[in-house]
Amino acid sequence: MDIQDLTRELHVKNDTKIVMYVGDGLGGLPQQPGGKTELEAANTPNLDALAKIGVCGGSIPVLPGISPGSGPGHLGLFGYDPIKCLIGRGALEATGIGFHLQEGDVAIRANFCSLDVAGNITDRRAGRIPTEESAPLAVKLRAVNIPGVEVFVEPVKEHRFVIVFRGKGLGGHMHDTDPQRTGVPPLEPTAMNKDSARTAEVAREFIMQALAILKGQPKANGLTLRGVSGKPNLPSYEDVYGLRAGAIAVYPMYKGLARLAGMDILGKPQTLDEQMTVLEENWSKYDFFFIHYKYTDSSGEDGNFAVKVKRTEEFDAAVPRITALKPDVLVVTGDHSTPSMLASHSWHPVPTLIVAKNCRTDGCQSFGESECLRGGLGQFEAKYIMSLALANAGRLGKYGA
Amino acid sequence: MDIQDLTRELHVKNDTKIVMYVGDGLGGLPQQPGGKTELEAANTPNLDALAKIGVCGGSIPVLPGISPGSGPGHLGLFGYDPIKCLIGRGALEATGIGFHLQEGDVAIRANFCSLDVAGNITDRRAGRIPTEESAPLAVKLRAVNIPGVEVFVEPVKEHRFVIVFRGKGLGGHMHDTDPQRTGVPPLEPTAMNKDSARTAEVAREFIMQALAILKGQPKANGLTLRGVSGKPNLPSYEDVYGLRAGAIAVYPMYKGLARLAGMDILGKPQTLDEQMTVLEENWSKYDFFFIHYKYTDSSGEDGNFAVKVKRTEEFDAAVPRITALKPDVLVVTGDHSTPSMLASHSWHPVPTLIVAKNCRTDGCQSFGESECLRGGLGQFEAKYIMSLALANAGRLGKYGA
Repeated sequence: MDIQDLTRELHVKNDTKIVMYVGDGLGGLPQQPGGKTELEAANTPNLDALAKIGVCGGSIPVLPGISPGSGPGHLGLFGYDPIKCLIGRGALEATGIGFHLQEGDVAIRANFCSLDVAGNITDRRAGRIPTEESAPLAVKLRAVNIPGVEVFVEPVKEHRFVIVFRGKGLGGHMHDTDPQRTGVPPLEPTAMNKDSARTAEVAREFIMQALAILKGQPKANGLTLRGVSGKPNLPSYEDVYGLRAGAIAVYPMYKGLARLAGMDILGKPQTLDEQMTVLEENWSKYDFFFIHYKYTDSSGEDGNFAVKVKRTEEFDAAVPRITALKPDVLVVTGDHSTPSMLASHSWHPVPTLIVAKNCRTDGCQSFGESECLRGGLGQFEAKYIMSLALANAGRLGKYGA
Repeated sequence: MDIQDLTRELHVKNDTKIVMYVGDGLGGLPQQPGGKTELEAANTPNLDALAKIGVCGGSIPVLPGISPGSGPGHLGLFGYDPIKCLIGRGALEATGIGFHLQEGDVAIRANFCSLDVAGNITDRRAGRIPTEESAPLAVKLRAVNIPGVEVFVEPVKEHRFVIVFRGKGLGGHMHDTDPQRTGVPPLEPTAMNKDSARTAEVAREFIMQALAILKGQPKANGLTLRGVSGKPNLPSYEDVYGLRAGAIAVYPMYKGLARLAGMDILGKPQTLDEQMTVLEENWSKYDFFFIHYKYTDSSGEDGNFAVKVKRTEEFDAAVPRITALKPDVLVVTGDHSTPSMLASHSWHPVPTLIVAKNCRTDGCQSFGESECLRGGLGQFEAKYIMSLALANAGRLGKYGA
């Protein structure tokens, strides 16, 4: 019994609207101890106003000290236990480039590599081949023909590409073929269980044909397969929360993650302004909206404090278009922290606020890491945001008599 | 391994006294954002004095966002995981009217209903029959005679009554017979597993005889059975904590829940004053006392802010009779919040304080929702209150070497 077993059992329907507004990598760090974080340095009058009438806290993406990738980070926000519901790396990579995985598909992260005449690996990343050279090669591999199996090959970046096998009886449990070192040949595809025996066979056939196609290439004359995985089987928002859910995102990764949770992908917005327009256009059609803003994370990843402050102010400036719609519950949070001081995802709790009629206001005066420490939500695992949102929307019945 | 596995292994005995003073539904909400809750509006000099010398926090009854019924709410306070230890509805209803369930008993919530000549349900609640009419009918059903089975029938309220079967080989897993709609007959009793086959047989026989007894009744000429369940098998306070525990409650439900945890039920107090007298009289005989005060909840359920404030002041006024006994550990808490603004149980964390010699005081100056946010206990699941109480009583040994 976990929190989703409870929400599945207890949820009731009503006509409330819930908005989850996510600033990717929202949390940060000050430039010197005692200073202000990016969020605190930013001028965010709209978020500060929400903090005053809402309840604040710090969301722990996975567990204390654990810095999540985008997959676990968003699974937590969506209420899935990010430890139990792990998305395979192949499936995540396919999702990230917008590939729409179907039930029974097998997704694989593939790397181009360099092989010597004996077939031993001389460079595991094909000499960091640039995307301009690697992408056409990946497209060439679409010529591989395996009876009874539909084969998809999608370029990603540099030496990386994605392979998806679609066909009957393909299990998602196959060992990586990357030996993790040079001077040896790639490993033979081998299945982890009986259900995946056919997958390993198909992979061997794919590699044989691919090597013929790549023969003579100066850098990328070989390949390794990693993170073989089937489509993750997440219960849907409709099932666990009784919510018709729509996702409003710009980047394929976040659309893909939302789709795995059973959300509809709304519109094709390219800017935050366009995202808000999509929100307004779809307001009557959904109970729950996930709005994803990318640039608080990417500026943090770039290690640029000043730009992250600016991006955070843009994130704030769009708030009035949400509040004008009068959502019953508005959650503002992030999937993890991305302090520009670290130029990477981090484990630090993420500033989070919930505004709703009966949220029990806590006296926080602005939205930032320090104020959130004093907030009424305390510090809590991200996977509880959805049960809190449902409760505040009056969408959860009583547990037990 | 959960917290009770640890306390079972680690507890030691000494002559300390622990008092858990529970204001049912103690937590609340302000009438407008930023205002005072019932507890904060109430004049509670005794609780405020305790907050100054104790450690405060917010207790989460089950998990964030989950509003518990009385059963899970109290199981949590008693240290049982309210998700793992669910009490069946039949057992809880029997417990609530003071029926003393024995091992092997099967308890059932029964409803009178109205049937037409074809045997289809026309009203699932027998026209909301008043208790004055329904209670004598329930008593009449005691005439049912089933060889080898002792049958108990107890009136509850309006259309509701309780049936308990006592006999050999009766499992507690039978489907409800309430079809949840009118225009169809009640369902046949069917077992969920082999062990409950005899239970379904006995239920069919009970229904047949009951229908003969009820024949010709204008409203209540039929019945449905729900929430069939055996006696919950909770480990006792003696077992998991090494405590001789006594419960001092006015209402049958809370006496029943305490009895399920292996507590002795002390006296027959009708008022909070009488409860304190019972406490004084039994002080030397027990290690742990659970004192339950109902009216903070019932006034909240009535949606009456002013009355809840008053009831909270009464709850406070009794404190000196507890502290005069110099308990080594005094816990003040509630099983859940019942904000009068919602007129129902809610998910909001419950103000909680622990006073003990080495509790590590936290600077809280009064007892209320906002001060508890700044408390040294932080926000924590209710099931940890007992391990904290034991630790503060010096009743827990070291874990591991």
